[in-house]
Amino acid sequence: MKFEVTILGSSSATPVFNRNPTAQLLNCNEKIYLIDCGEGTQQQMIRFGLKASKIDAVFISHLHGDHYFGLIGLLSTMHLNGRIKPFQIFAPPPLKEILEMQFRYSDTILRYEIDFIPTTADAPAKIFENQDMVVETIILNHRIPTTGFKFTEKKRQRKLRSEKLEADNIPLEYYPLLKRGLDLELPGGRIIANADYTIDSDAPKCYCYCSDTLADGSYLDSIRNCTMLYHEATFLDELLDRANMTHHTTALQAGSIAKDVGAGKLLIGHFSSRYKTLLPLLEEASGVFANTELALEGNTYSI
Amino acid sequence: MKFEVTILGSSSATPVFNRNPTAQLLNCNEKIYLIDCGEGTQQQMIRFGLKASKIDAVFISHLHGDHYFGLIGLLSTMHLNGRIKPFQIFAPPPLKEILEMQFRYSDTILRYEIDFIPTTADAPAKIFENQDMVVETIILNHRIPTTGFKFTEKKRQRKLRSEKLEADNIPLEYYPLLKRGLDLELPGGRIIANADYTIDSDAPKCYCYCSDTLADGSYLDSIRNCTMLYHEATFLDELLDRANMTHHTTALQAGSIAKDVGAGKLLIGHFSSRYKTLLPLLEEASGVFANTELALEGNTYSI
Repeated sequence: MKFEVTILGSSSATPVFNRNPTAQLLNCNEKIYLIDCGEGTQQQMIRFGLKASKIDAVFISHLHGDHYFGLIGLLSTMHLNGRIKPFQIFAPPPLKEILEMQFRYSDTILRYEIDFIPTTADAPAKIFENQDMVVETIILNHRIPTTGFKFTEKKRQRKLRSEKLEADNIPLEYYPLLKRGLDLELPGGRIIANADYTIDSDAPKCYCYCSDTLADGSYLDSIRNCTMLYHEATFLDELLDRANMTHHTTALQAGSIAKDVGAGKLLIGHFSSRYKTLLPLLEEASGVFANTELALEGNTYSI
Repeated sequence: MKFEVTILGSSSATPVFNRNPTAQLLNCNEKIYLIDCGEGTQQQMIRFGLKASKIDAVFISHLHGDHYFGLIGLLSTMHLNGRIKPFQIFAPPPLKEILEMQFRYSDTILRYEIDFIPTTADAPAKIFENQDMVVETIILNHRIPTTGFKFTEKKRQRKLRSEKLEADNIPLEYYPLLKRGLDLELPGGRIIANADYTIDSDAPKCYCYCSDTLADGSYLDSIRNCTMLYHEATFLDELLDRANMTHHTTALQAGSIAKDVGAGKLLIGHFSSRYKTLLPLLEEASGVFANTELALEGNTYSI
């Protein structure tokens, strides 16, 4: 199953040095989810040859502008381009009012339906589920209500050992039951032990998105053992005081968090506009947690 | 006096082909005015090396998103970058509510004052004046209340003929009076005829901005004899029906309007996303009005 994330914006607060405010595009088995949507996200998608029409839903972490100012334009463009497929928005409740007001004053009646699912920053909650994936909120500690998002693959069916099944003439109609892990008795009494004909599927993968938070450890239980952790790393640790004051995380702290929770990999982003070059941030985080990468715009990271 | 306009966005409705939604930066004697502010305007300014901090005011024509979705991000960035200089917004009344709502939910208290001056689309009105310039609204005919803007230089003082003044030993203290066009009598009775010592200043220039309108002729009196006319030219004339239906103008109509009103020069923009190349639009308008140019992003046009 395809499970990968493409970075559309890696800047905090303001666009600078050709870095755009936060946005990511997640591909979960060809369902496309946008995570946050800073100003200019639709232009970034054009730049990278990605189609807005394919997006199924957006997950907005909080209502600071660098995480959502691009949404109204994206919604308008999809309308103008003839979208009719419904669109889901998972976001803090006031966003509904903000969007509706802007559509009202521009006299816009969207051609497609928006299904607005309000999130709350009180306690982690399952907010979405389909056949492949469960999405839960992560309660972050920022200056306004903020949630991260945890995308977890569902446990998949067992893999068939096709050659052995064919060699032993097991009829095709039993394959679905074997995939589900059942032992079988064929007509005539022949016993088919599941363990002989299947192997375990890959372990479910998990992507955690933690944007804009004080690194206070309060949310670590929500992100334990994730396959890939995206964590903001707005500042170098020499600006720890500023990180604490603004409820942000340093690159060193992001590395420590990835280590503490046993993440498979760490992706850092949401870089302050003061950093023209990002290498020091990478060095600081990877000094603590070796398997760290910078979230670079246009790059796709396999989860 | 410097009087020039830099194009930041030339696309209608949606960003496409590396064209951004509408925005222009007007420099009137080093006072900097933004006209409309589509999504990504602040990124365009970075791209062209222009400083948002220098903008004194913004004039928003109407509340379709391609003309204002970039404003909230620009205002936020100026706040985060420490602006304290007040900022004026001339715009349809609901924009105040839209901006205030977004600042409220992001818990943002701006470091600088916003002076919001509501515009109405009922009748042309003078909305701004300083020592160099008067700005009046132009009442356009679009699907929602829309105004263009007419920026007119004030009549300037007469120019002094310095060599003759010096040759005739006219004392310096009389120069300001001569600039104002007065004839003088010096102590002792000597008469100084203004016409001998000054020449007329350049005629005041005028820039008219007409974005998003049906070309119904209703506003032609407001833009007569302007030095430079920016007029939307969303479609080729083969799509006249679509232009009428959506209350837009064709390139042919824009050329005819420039000719009818005796404009010095025509700048066309707000190009539909269907046009990958703009040359046919230029050819159509300039067939009627020769002195036509395309509004190309990053280009500066002297008025």
